[in-house]
Amino acid sequence: MKNVIGLDLGGTNSVLGIVDSRGSIKATTAIKTQSYTTAEAFVDAALSALNILIEQEGGIANMSAMGIGAPNGNYYSGAIEYAPNLCWAHNGVVPLAEMFSQRLGIPVALTNDANAAAIGEMTYGVARGMKNFIVLTLGTGVGSGIVLNGQLIYGHDGFAGELGHVNVVSHDGRVCGCGRQGCLEAYCSATGVARTARERLANTDKPSLLRVMNADDITSLDVAMAAQKGDKLAVEVYEFTGTMLGKACADFAAFCSPEAFIFFGGLTKAGDLIMNPIKKGFADNALTIFKGKPKFLVSGLDGASAAVLGASAIGWELANKMMTHR
Amino acid sequence: MKNVIGLDLGGTNSVLGIVDSRGSIKATTAIKTQSYTTAEAFVDAALSALNILIEQEGGIANMSAMGIGAPNGNYYSGAIEYAPNLCWAHNGVVPLAEMFSQRLGIPVALTNDANAAAIGEMTYGVARGMKNFIVLTLGTGVGSGIVLNGQLIYGHDGFAGELGHVNVVSHDGRVCGCGRQGCLEAYCSATGVARTARERLANTDKPSLLRVMNADDITSLDVAMAAQKGDKLAVEVYEFTGTMLGKACADFAAFCSPEAFIFFGGLTKAGDLIMNPIKKGFADNALTIFKGKPKFLVSGLDGASAAVLGASAIGWELANKMMTHR
Repeated sequence: MKNVIGLDLGGTNSVLGIVDSRGSIKATTAIKTQSYTTAEAFVDAALSALNILIEQEGGIANMSAMGIGAPNGNYYSGAIEYAPNLCWAHNGVVPLAEMFSQRLGIPVALTNDANAAAIGEMTYGVARGMKNFIVLTLGTGVGSGIVLNGQLIYGHDGFAGELGHVNVVSHDGRVCGCGRQGCLEAYCSATGVARTARERLANTDKPSLLRVMNADDITSLDVAMAAQKGDKLAVEVYEFTGTMLGKACADFAAFCSPEAFIFFGGLTKAGDLIMNPIKKGFADNALTIFKGKPKFLVSGLDGASAAVLGASAIGWELANKMMTHR
Repeated sequence: MKNVIGLDLGGTNSVLGIVDSRGSIKATTAIKTQSYTTAEAFVDAALSALNILIEQEGGIANMSAMGIGAPNGNYYSGAIEYAPNLCWAHNGVVPLAEMFSQRLGIPVALTNDANAAAIGEMTYGVARGMKNFIVLTLGTGVGSGIVLNGQLIYGHDGFAGELGHVNVVSHDGRVCGCGRQGCLEAYCSATGVARTARERLANTDKPSLLRVMNADDITSLDVAMAAQKGDKLAVEVYEFTGTMLGKACADFAAFCSPEAFIFFGGLTKAGDLIMNPIKKGFADNALTIFKGKPKFLVSGLDGASAAVLGASAIGWELANKMMTHR
């Protein structure tokens, strides 16, 4: 088996890696995503950095495909479509898969970062052997990748799996970054955790270690650290967040009855502080037939390399498809 | 092509039919579902009625498979599992597919009625050619059948597609038949429509044609008829119901971005009275990327025969699978 190239295109850094068929990252490099004003300039810079790695690893003949995980990435079109947080792609459609494919001469697949994480879990992580599972990425926002019958769900237009934007508070919910109210992401992202903490600090006079901080500077990590020291208010913030996630998972089970929910990203670092309320929130809210059935797992991929592995897994999927069709 | 046998097992009537490959029902018969105290007695009675049809249509050699749509039907196990409304199956697991298969000597597949409706729409109805769609059955309850990547979604345990039991009112919602609060079914079923009408009659003094009726006797059909006569309160009941369904569809789109939502069952008889608020509820609540995309369709299957056609379609699916594997 040859290697594949993975590109994890993030809002700040774009990490490029060469990954072998066992999921070992053989080499990585990174560029700043937003130091370029056009998509062409970004691709030029990425290829300059990447070509050094490719030469190290036996040349392009030794690479069978490339996979890209990117915000607002559409698998069907291979393009980044109107990504609000990317200065060279916020205003249109950038056919990034085609641009890399033309320059490298190998097939390139692209999807959004949460879908890449799901394929990554199935290829290298805790979802190996599973046919029905949901990955929820709990970072700055809440993303999701859904695998059913062993296939990633892209939907009719490539945009399936926006579980961060299901409604969880039906009346007078928080305003979300998407402009609507009451979305899961407004509560259960890192940003949502910090907001819940700030609200509780402002609306109660409970003592808390967090009170020494400037409210605007509080992050989800600060809340987790305070909770781990036994801070009651901070523990309650994670209980609230996890319960809401578990309740949302009860609805997701009604949709597709998955074998497992897999949590990925920054908030999972809080460990049992968030995982226990998630399980309880599910048990308290799921339809009887689903109770006790799904597993609640934390990602099995190493944080630092997970995104590149996920992107590379999209490349492997493409490489395998091309082999089957030959 | 041979024929298939379809069995639509309902709470009151069980309709048996023989269906050819073009979707023509060649013969039907029916028995009362609950006139029997055991599953064995039900199967005996169904076979007595069915055998007459089978002989008329060229004997069992002319039947390639049987499909059954039944409440709490599990495709994986071929069994009806703890169906609360069936006197001979409320208390355990009835392996109905196996029971019919042993007696008839042909393969038998079983699923729940909403899944059968979805396969029916894909085989004979408005979903022909579609790969990603959701059927919502709006009857006494709310059921659903979900098709993604051209496959019915059964989930890990066979119980996927319980969209009647997603939460739509997050605080202090109506108690649902399942024992939980705020389920879609508690609002958007025929029962839910009647309940909304009763609540509005009791809580307002708006004039309404419905006030001449005994509140307990009001059905969704009475509300639809009043609305068609221009009764404002009745129109508002359908607006409330449709808006809530449309809002729920916005969440379902975030899950799987389907090409179409297809509505099936009694409430669809209200026509534009419910379909227009559904479309508006979706447009007002969907994430921008989904707006204007999915179609909102009423079932293309004739009401009287739809359920038997749906059940037969499960039989065709099985027959085709067996041919492929030969």
